[in-house]
Amino acid sequence: MGGDKAPAEVIAGIRRYLDQTEDPSLLHLFGNSEVIEPLLEQQNIPSDRIQHHATTEVIGMHEHPTRALKEKPNSSLAIGFRSLAAGDIDAFLSAGNTGAMLVGSLFSIQPLEGVIRPTMGTIMPKLSGGTGLILDVGLNADCKPEHLNQFAVMGSVYARHILGIEHPKVGLLNVGEEEGKGNLLAQATYPLLRDNTSIHFIGNIEGRDLMSDKADVMVCEGFTGNIILKMAESLYDMAQHQDIQHPFLNRFHFENYGGTPVLGVRKPVIVGHGISGSLAFCNMIRLADQMLQTDILGKMATELSR
Amino acid sequence: MGGDKAPAEVIAGIRRYLDQTEDPSLLHLFGNSEVIEPLLEQQNIPSDRIQHHATTEVIGMHEHPTRALKEKPNSSLAIGFRSLAAGDIDAFLSAGNTGAMLVGSLFSIQPLEGVIRPTMGTIMPKLSGGTGLILDVGLNADCKPEHLNQFAVMGSVYARHILGIEHPKVGLLNVGEEEGKGNLLAQATYPLLRDNTSIHFIGNIEGRDLMSDKADVMVCEGFTGNIILKMAESLYDMAQHQDIQHPFLNRFHFENYGGTPVLGVRKPVIVGHGISGSLAFCNMIRLADQMLQTDILGKMATELSR
Repeated sequence: MGGDKAPAEVIAGIRRYLDQTEDPSLLHLFGNSEVIEPLLEQQNIPSDRIQHHATTEVIGMHEHPTRALKEKPNSSLAIGFRSLAAGDIDAFLSAGNTGAMLVGSLFSIQPLEGVIRPTMGTIMPKLSGGTGLILDVGLNADCKPEHLNQFAVMGSVYARHILGIEHPKVGLLNVGEEEGKGNLLAQATYPLLRDNTSIHFIGNIEGRDLMSDKADVMVCEGFTGNIILKMAESLYDMAQHQDIQHPFLNRFHFENYGGTPVLGVRKPVIVGHGISGSLAFCNMIRLADQMLQTDILGKMATELSR
Repeated sequence: MGGDKAPAEVIAGIRRYLDQTEDPSLLHLFGNSEVIEPLLEQQNIPSDRIQHHATTEVIGMHEHPTRALKEKPNSSLAIGFRSLAAGDIDAFLSAGNTGAMLVGSLFSIQPLEGVIRPTMGTIMPKLSGGTGLILDVGLNADCKPEHLNQFAVMGSVYARHILGIEHPKVGLLNVGEEEGKGNLLAQATYPLLRDNTSIHFIGNIEGRDLMSDKADVMVCEGFTGNIILKMAESLYDMAQHQDIQHPFLNRFHFENYGGTPVLGVRKPVIVGHGISGSLAFCNMIRLADQMLQTDILGKMATELSR
């Protein structure tokens, strides 16, 4: 029920997923029957491919996350998280209230063994045609050096197994290239990353390097990361506003990518953009599937325990 | 002698300034005679418009700022700051070693009465065609709420008298719109800005609002600001790389604007981009002149003492 175009685009996304995927996973759908059932019929979704869990409440996009989850226990979001925690489903995704998705991830699901702070990253289009990962992008507005060090490990595992970058280069987002530059956090983080044998640290990167191939995994606290993410998102809007047609700028149309996973919790949770359409939902389901197939969370736990 | 294209483009910039300006200021030039003199002749600079102070040393673009200023007392940069401190000149500008320009500003010139931390801002092109100001962009990587509160005042005075925005709207750069959002710094800064009667505070702005007209003066600590500045600069490079021709993207070609003033010190100091050409130098001289004519520093001191 979550997202500006739910549930019609969710069901249309399921149709795309089923069309594109051999031997697809069984999909569990949490939503109000009277709106969901006609859409399932309309999109010709075979009943053996889907399990529908009827819900009766909806958390709005602007509701207070913690309060809404507590006061609406029969919402699609609350029931989804309970099912995930109970092991009835293996992964959970929604384009609903972002705050409620994050609160649900942090409090319904345990963090992975050894993870101090779960994190959320976003992909960053590279001029070369490749794709980088920047994290944290808003889950942790204030961070300590050991948090950033773990983000680097989780980001590297994600880049390797999901983005297909065999030896991801890790860069510390900073205001200058040399060691010793930066605010207190960046200065204290640098030696941790340098001495971390689980990652391939290439040093500091600057704002001008975000779209270059200098680093694949770009680490920062969630305040700066969130502002970069939203500035990057606005590049697509800028292109629309200024009537600039160009494939590179189209790559900043983030809702096409599907969602952003919460990294560092025990089950895949994928947070979609509010304006997600069917392509985004299809991609989110594929990403959840990929995260399960590659056992990426197990691999993260292994790397973090090294 | 500072900048990648000095001193030829400096002298060419002086030529442009003299051509464009009625009753121009007397310009003091600090540089090595054997290279400067032929260029002055070549550009036909009348000797009554210029006073040349011969220097014998040059601080390189990658030298350590504090060490270089100390070890090269006869460099154009060191002599320039001494002349400014002594009152022989009223404003100082260079496209040389940025770090040395900042060290010189902070230690040769006193901060304005009441200023805790001088700051540096940069202009931000707006989709509407207007121009905003974002500060700090790197002089203060770690900040306290009272610093950001002063940046808001100094930025508002600058926007009013230099950018020509009569009632500049101040926004606090943050990760969400509502009061209470953000990291600890942003949360603690919000009430200071809200209660500051010297400024017109409109609340939090996000990364997506940087190019919009939501706020004219956008306040943040220098870590985030520097990364935004360099990401914005890279938009012009991106357009070049991807062969996108568009006037809006050309506005991110920052070296055309001239330099960035250090705000909150007792004399105008303007820090130019390393790759400044003659247009940038001309614009820097005009900006220095404008800052003196409007007594902008006096106005800042008045606002800060309210």
